[in-house]
Amino acid sequence: MKFAKPLPSYLLQRYQGWHATTYTENKAWYRRLADEGQRPRAMVISCCDSRVHVTSIFGADTGEFFIHRNIANLVPPYEPDGLQHGTSATVEYAVTALKVAHLIVLGHSNCGGVAGCMSMCSGHAPELDEKTSFVGRWMDILRPGYAAIEHVEGEQERLRALEKKAVCVSLENLMTFPFIEEAVNNGTLSLHGLWTDIGEGSLEYYEAKDDKFLPV
Amino acid sequence: MKFAKPLPSYLLQRYQGWHATTYTENKAWYRRLADEGQRPRAMVISCCDSRVHVTSIFGADTGEFFIHRNIANLVPPYEPDGLQHGTSATVEYAVTALKVAHLIVLGHSNCGGVAGCMSMCSGHAPELDEKTSFVGRWMDILRPGYAAIEHVEGEQERLRALEKKAVCVSLENLMTFPFIEEAVNNGTLSLHGLWTDIGEGSLEYYEAKDDKFLPV
Amino acid sequence: MKFAKPLPSYLLQRYQGWHATTYTENKAWYRRLADEGQRPRAMVISCCDSRVHVTSIFGADTGEFFIHRNIANLVPPYEPDGLQHGTSATVEYAVTALKVAHLIVLGHSNCGGVAGCMSMCSGHAPELDEKTSFVGRWMDILRPGYAAIEHVEGEQERLRALEKKAVCVSLENLMTFPFIEEAVNNGTLSLHGLWTDIGEGSLEYYEAKDDKFLPV
Amino acid sequence: MKFAKPLPSYLLQRYQGWHATTYTENKAWYRRLADEGQRPRAMVISCCDSRVHVTSIFGADTGEFFIHRNIANLVPPYEPDGLQHGTSATVEYAVTALKVAHLIVLGHSNCGGVAGCMSMCSGHAPELDEKTSFVGRWMDILRPGYAAIEHVEGEQERLRALEKKAVCVSLENLMTFPFIEEAVNNGTLSLHGLWTDIGEGSLEYYEAKDDKFLPV
Repeated sequence: MKFAKPLPSYLLQRYQGWHATTYTENKAWYRRLADEGQRPRAMVISCCDSRVHVTSIFGADTGEFFIHRNIANLVPPYEPDGLQHGTSATVEYAVTALKVAHLIVLGHSNCGGVAGCMSMCSGHAPELDEKTSFVGRWMDILRPGYAAIEHVEGEQERLRALEKKAVCVSLENLMTFPFIEEAVNNGTLSLHGLWTDIGEGSLEYYEAKDDKFLPV
Repeated sequence: MKFAKPLPSYLLQRYQGWHATTYTENKAWYRRLADEGQRPRAMVISCCDSRVHVTSIFGADTGEFFIHRNIANLVPPYEPDGLQHGTSATVEYAVTALKVAHLIVLGHSNCGGVAGCMSMCSGHAPELDEKTSFVGRWMDILRPGYAAIEHVEGEQERLRALEKKAVCVSLENLMTFPFIEEAVNNGTLSLHGLWTDIGEGSLEYYEAKDDKFLPV
Repeated sequence: MKFAKPLPSYLLQRYQGWHATTYTENKAWYRRLADEGQRPRAMVISCCDSRVHVTSIFGADTGEFFIHRNIANLVPPYEPDGLQHGTSATVEYAVTALKVAHLIVLGHSNCGGVAGCMSMCSGHAPELDEKTSFVGRWMDILRPGYAAIEHVEGEQERLRALEKKAVCVSLENLMTFPFIEEAVNNGTLSLHGLWTDIGEGSLEYYEAKDDKFLPV
Repeated sequence: MKFAKPLPSYLLQRYQGWHATTYTENKAWYRRLADEGQRPRAMVISCCDSRVHVTSIFGADTGEFFIHRNIANLVPPYEPDGLQHGTSATVEYAVTALKVAHLIVLGHSNCGGVAGCMSMCSGHAPELDEKTSFVGRWMDILRPGYAAIEHVEGEQERLRALEKKAVCVSLENLMTFPFIEEAVNNGTLSLHGLWTDIGEGSLEYYEAKDDKFLPV
């Protein structure tokens, strides 16, 4: 692999700073986490977006959250077809092996993936329709959600509706996994839907009773 | 979705703490990141493991890293078959839309996914061999790497070798994506392989010249 | 300009080292910064002193800080008189064109400019009082601050008090610029005062509540 | 000063990293720099631009460069009128008090200040012509240089010519300071003109013999 390069020096410096402070002050805890394994209370599924770090928003301690991040925080439906399903693997591991107590889906404003999906579904992004578009095929998971928000007036409003729909579609798909449905039904697991506005720093949660998102 | 629950109160409290401090002190920057979009310098592919947060290790500022996290930081080879490839979608978005300058694969010690893969490949985990095991099928990506480390003496040593192999397999698979190979060749993208030891807090990088991992 | 000389060779060598390493490893990022323009999150006003490099203390990534350095990190009050105000031009550009989120004034110990100001104000440096002294006239900005610390006992203590006063005077003068006051009031800009001790490597910040500098 | 805020936490963390590594490893040297004062070999006048850090390009050691940074690395002509001249104060201090051996003016590509000057001089930026524009009045220093490059064909080429002219104008203005002319003439000080291309990472120097910039 002649192409691989060493760590860029600005990151090397920062790593050394982390090692000399955070790590050194918490050495015993890191040692223990390594020896005894992780025991996270919650799994969070959020977006890759560089502006939304769940570890920051929820002040995550090391060892606390099992975090899967993908484009637009999507979960596909249960499909045990023997093919590679990276996201399904993460929830299977979190629920059956780590037995997390909470499974949180965190959506966000200004989501590039969701915006791409809206363009695609409304016929404005033929390149995403192509078989070879990984982003397009991934966003297909959200296609069923588009129908439900198509009528919303105002492009901004429609986009926000689709971002929140992405959270709901993921929650619904999560319930199609037998091991999740079972854990939810016997009370060992709870599912949560959240959406955060990057610019406002606000947070909304999905309220089942009203079937809508409310400010926390 | 009657099953969805509000945010657990311990997280609500922490979010409020974040909003009253970090967000409030940096409001203008969040507002701007929302309005002008993200411009991350690097993409990091790391594990979901709750003990390895790249944002902490590299003191990531909001807006700096585009982060994909999956089981065992794996990237499958390029397969434009029209099916859902969540991981491939993340690298496509990072490289072609965001045009990140660095793509970093970060592996780690005590990786549950890699340990499962070793059990599976050595015939000790028949449940992972089943068609319905999402984790097993996902870890298939690492199978070709197992052959190369099978001979390593000592279980701990073999495990570490396979953890590092996971980084190399991902780097090799990344280069099978035409848009990545092109960006690497014309110098607009560089690939980096890293491995961190949770207990020691140490960091190693893949050195192409020697074809092995060296301490930073 | 017959007088101009080529780059001294010790610097040439270092530039070549930088180009072969840092630049080459980060080529794509530099290319992009050139093409897309800078988007610094913060402006820092610090001293020219060769012992205080803000880029080092805060591990600044390229593109992150807009930096103005002058004698004693001073900012004069708002004076739109049509004359040349180099420092006022830097803050105008940072706040109105670049729209930085933070404006940080960083003072430091052992400041030659501040020591000169103290000598001048206490009548021990007549040469600085002369009309032709650029340093003297520049340090006039800090004269109003001298009255407030004149009573402090002990020369070292008085000097430190004046160094910190230089930070406060600059912060107060910054607020006399209409575009800064407006940005602060509508929450898009925050001002910060810091003072670092060169020998101790310590850092203090101005705490508004107590109207004094506290260790970070 | 109710408006002043504490240090943003992302910078606090980085400072702590610097203190635990760079500072701690070099404590004795910092202690000595504090006790004995600075003795920089060179002064560098460069731009505030966040993409051009002279400390990085020339691998500056602590204590080595006395650095003045302003918009477009400009030096006004000698004007001992008793008014505030921040830039003149920096060169006076560097040459008469610190007795630096080199005085380097470093210009750069993609300079926002120079671009503004070109717009202003060609009549396309009336807002910069206003008496109240600090940036406009500051860029007046470069006005005499505009005439010399006005004829250059191609906007990009003209811009680059003006960026390099900014270096030359500053060098010429430096020589109008009696203490600089004297130091240059008796061989204790040398002046140097440089220009760097951000995207290419290249460096050119002003060659007196040919009266033009050549690659180093």
